[in-house]
Amino acid sequence: MLFNFFPKDANFFELFEKQSLYNVQAAEAFRIAVSGGALNTEALSKVVKLEAEADQAAHAVIMHLNKSFITPFDREDIHSLTKALDDIIDMLNTISNRLNVYRITDVKKNLVEFALVIESAAKAIDTAVKGLKDMKNYDLVMASCMEISRLENISDSMRDTALAGLFENEKDPVVIIKWKELYEEAETVLDICADAAHVVESIMIKQA
Amino acid sequence: MLFNFFPKDANFFELFEKQSLYNVQAAEAFRIAVSGGALNTEALSKVVKLEAEADQAAHAVIMHLNKSFITPFDREDIHSLTKALDDIIDMLNTISNRLNVYRITDVKKNLVEFALVIESAAKAIDTAVKGLKDMKNYDLVMASCMEISRLENISDSMRDTALAGLFENEKDPVVIIKWKELYEEAETVLDICADAAHVVESIMIKQA
Amino acid sequence: MLFNFFPKDANFFELFEKQSLYNVQAAEAFRIAVSGGALNTEALSKVVKLEAEADQAAHAVIMHLNKSFITPFDREDIHSLTKALDDIIDMLNTISNRLNVYRITDVKKNLVEFALVIESAAKAIDTAVKGLKDMKNYDLVMASCMEISRLENISDSMRDTALAGLFENEKDPVVIIKWKELYEEAETVLDICADAAHVVESIMIKQA
Repeated sequence: MLFNFFPKDANFFELFEKQSLYNVQAAEAFRIAVSGGALNTEALSKVVKLEAEADQAAHAVIMHLNKSFITPFDREDIHSLTKALDDIIDMLNTISNRLNVYRITDVKKNLVEFALVIESAAKAIDTAVKGLKDMKNYDLVMASCMEISRLENISDSMRDTALAGLFENEKDPVVIIKWKELYEEAETVLDICADAAHVVESIMIKQA
Repeated sequence: MLFNFFPKDANFFELFEKQSLYNVQAAEAFRIAVSGGALNTEALSKVVKLEAEADQAAHAVIMHLNKSFITPFDREDIHSLTKALDDIIDMLNTISNRLNVYRITDVKKNLVEFALVIESAAKAIDTAVKGLKDMKNYDLVMASCMEISRLENISDSMRDTALAGLFENEKDPVVIIKWKELYEEAETVLDICADAAHVVESIMIKQA
Repeated sequence: MLFNFFPKDANFFELFEKQSLYNVQAAEAFRIAVSGGALNTEALSKVVKLEAEADQAAHAVIMHLNKSFITPFDREDIHSLTKALDDIIDMLNTISNRLNVYRITDVKKNLVEFALVIESAAKAIDTAVKGLKDMKNYDLVMASCMEISRLENISDSMRDTALAGLFENEKDPVVIIKWKELYEEAETVLDICADAAHVVESIMIKQA
């Protein structure tokens, strides 16, 4: 393959790490927002604020990509990784927004569990992204990607359990509509994390 | 970059303009369909009819792309732009179809506002697409793309306001199910317009 | 174009055929699961089991792609085809899962009709995928793709009819929530089949 070298210009790696850091911070703010029983609206606004900043970071990657003749790896992989990293915080922003729109005040326990898994996944992606810049991190990066895959599988079961409980115990259809969506979106965060992990794996394998 | 030239064969530009014109016409028909209080089913069928024709135009781009060795810009960008332009009218068709399936007769005011924003966005995309063929239009094209981005932000707020009002005031869960979907789909039209604008921006920047 | 040859290494074709066979088997199991009035949970678990195996087959294509310097056609088309083939069984798995989560015991007639159309589409894709490896199958492959497109159009109408009937006759909003989703997911299987068919068509046209 043509990509077996790393240019001195490490900008792409720095930009990915910046995107990833926003995700970690947003996942942390989201976990704080939903973990106290009552919704913490201050922590929730932090997610929204971080999302706007993360948008700039994603935009910077695309600009850099459009202007770069040589890239540290496959242009398409750079594009996919930036998009997946951006989609993570976008989805956290969407959930935060829906918690507001639906006037949720008391957070259901199942969403707290999702928040913990999301935070773990964001941290695992951060490890993987930081490892990307040097092939000596191959094993660590691949282990992080496998951890994300494990968390995604867990979140599938969590969503099914949460939905089954919701449809079994909740009598108000409007409450079902709201929480069905929140659980599904929470699980989607993990799907996107798994997408990001697949891109990272693919980049590492091509260079190995 | 390799794309700093425009071939004499302007077919791609003509095909994009044709796709874009269908979008403008469909957005106009949709706005007429929903703006009179009662649903105008005649205008609504026009959206469905235009979508079928627009499909042919999108198909023509893909055929032309598969057979072209030299393209005015990045093959992937051509594919993305055609797809985004086609997705706009597809989503308008989906909403029109749902209005029928859900036997909607009285249109809620919020959807009328969406229809106006959608029509503005379709026209801004039309300006951007028409400008693509000559770099002297750079500023106009970029301004149109920024306008689409502004309209997309507005539509996010519109959807949140519409949903919050729906969940606060509507007592019938079945009505909530229907209108929640219609509002979300209307906002999705703007998301797709923003996707199209991003492709156009990216094409212009690469050639600048 | 550069792709007018077939390498002796037929691995990609074998891998695609393997993916496609899982889809046919899963579509058959799904049809059996829903066709008896009461839900056949044994046949349903077979869909889930096949999906896990199909995942391995899709993964094998990506690995093979990452390690191949020469591919029988466009790398991006290989990626798209594998993804579309995998998305088909993923969506069948999602529906099967939802039937469990929603504790569905009696299957509505409309879903049985969807299952039949899905099975026909999976078989048409299988014919198309098997034909890919030799241009002498051009007409057969293209006819299969047209058949899939026809089935996708039928499934659009089926979904509209099923949804209109559901909203007209069903009084329980929670039942509406469940079956609205099941019908939409069933139709989505056909959308994905049409995506797969478009990739196949595009591969054939580029080589013609």
